[in-house]
Amino acid sequence: MKILTSVKIVRTFYWLIGHIFVMNITEFVELSIGRWRSQRSGHHLAFAHFEEVLSEINIESLSTDDSKVLEICKSNDVNPSSITHPFRMTWEGESDWDEKTFSGSTVLVPVPDAENPQKGKLLREEGYAETIAAVGNYHLSEDGTFILQTEYDRAAAEERIWFANPNLRFRVATIKTSNGKGITTASFCSEIRS
Amino acid sequence: MKILTSVKIVRTFYWLIGHIFVMNITEFVELSIGRWRSQRSGHHLAFAHFEEVLSEINIESLSTDDSKVLEICKSNDVNPSSITHPFRMTWEGESDWDEKTFSGSTVLVPVPDAENPQKGKLLREEGYAETIAAVGNYHLSEDGTFILQTEYDRAAAEERIWFANPNLRFRVATIKTSNGKGITTASFCSEIRS
Repeated sequence: MKILTSVKIVRTFYWLIGHIFVMNITEFVELSIGRWRSQRSGHHLAFAHFEEVLSEINIESLSTDDSKVLEICKSNDVNPSSITHPFRMTWEGESDWDEKTFSGSTVLVPVPDAENPQKGKLLREEGYAETIAAVGNYHLSEDGTFILQTEYDRAAAEERIWFANPNLRFRVATIKTSNGKGITTASFCSEIRS
Repeated sequence: MKILTSVKIVRTFYWLIGHIFVMNITEFVELSIGRWRSQRSGHHLAFAHFEEVLSEINIESLSTDDSKVLEICKSNDVNPSSITHPFRMTWEGESDWDEKTFSGSTVLVPVPDAENPQKGKLLREEGYAETIAAVGNYHLSEDGTFILQTEYDRAAAEERIWFANPNLRFRVATIKTSNGKGITTASFCSEIRS
């Protein structure tokens, strides 16, 4: 039996807390920190078309007084004392659609609801569906799923993220157009800590 | 504006009930009844391998005194008066792995918990991970996700099913080996009512 490193003990602790009690944003972000090998399947619903994407994702903790974090607070008119656990996400990958590599990075800032720690806003430097800044609303369900809803100008995105164990994370994302045509794409990621 | 058929009104009603209040097995099964065009991605985690499957799924309601249903109750030692909304699932599809078509059929029998209608057992004529009869434990989360856990001899399966709208259903299934090696495969289905 291998001796667990202190990092592993801490991760297992956060995962257990999130499963025995209700997960909050602290446990969720702490579990997400690290490098992940991501396998993503995109479903283009109207054409039953599949897209396959492999990528490396790095999620790193930022300090609440990081200059980028303070800038995002300022542009969203959010008091920096009300934020918690900001982080940077960086990705690099390849899709079977165009065989070209892609990469990117964004900073995310959770702002928990003062009344209900299971809910809050997530400020984002740059959106997924459109390359503009975005503010999403999140909540953590009783079974530990992080559910994020973000409205854009011409679309709305929903993301559901949960941990099967401290080293395996699943994500389902859907994009809905705002012209009433409904959900156009859905994607599923399996992410293994590397 | 098209006039909704009574079937569509009923489905929308069940979906709304499931979203405004908490979904129970009645709403869940009623919403599932019908023909679905399914797009499935399998992720084989150790090798980052993708599998693509297209299939047609048909879910039809059975009566609680159907002979097959009564037989499943008997073999599980379950009183037929404690069951609700049994159904038959039939599928036919093709995977990009072997280009061969596959098909199958199974009967499922929900047995809601007398104390808590959000929980129960799901009796199954034949399992997914192993072709033997199986009994799973389900619960419906507050956000309307049906979560089914089934233990087999050498594996355990978890399935999460939710409705994005009355005509779009998502499923995430994971298979865990019982030798302690963890989750080996995960799959994601987008299912559109056809």
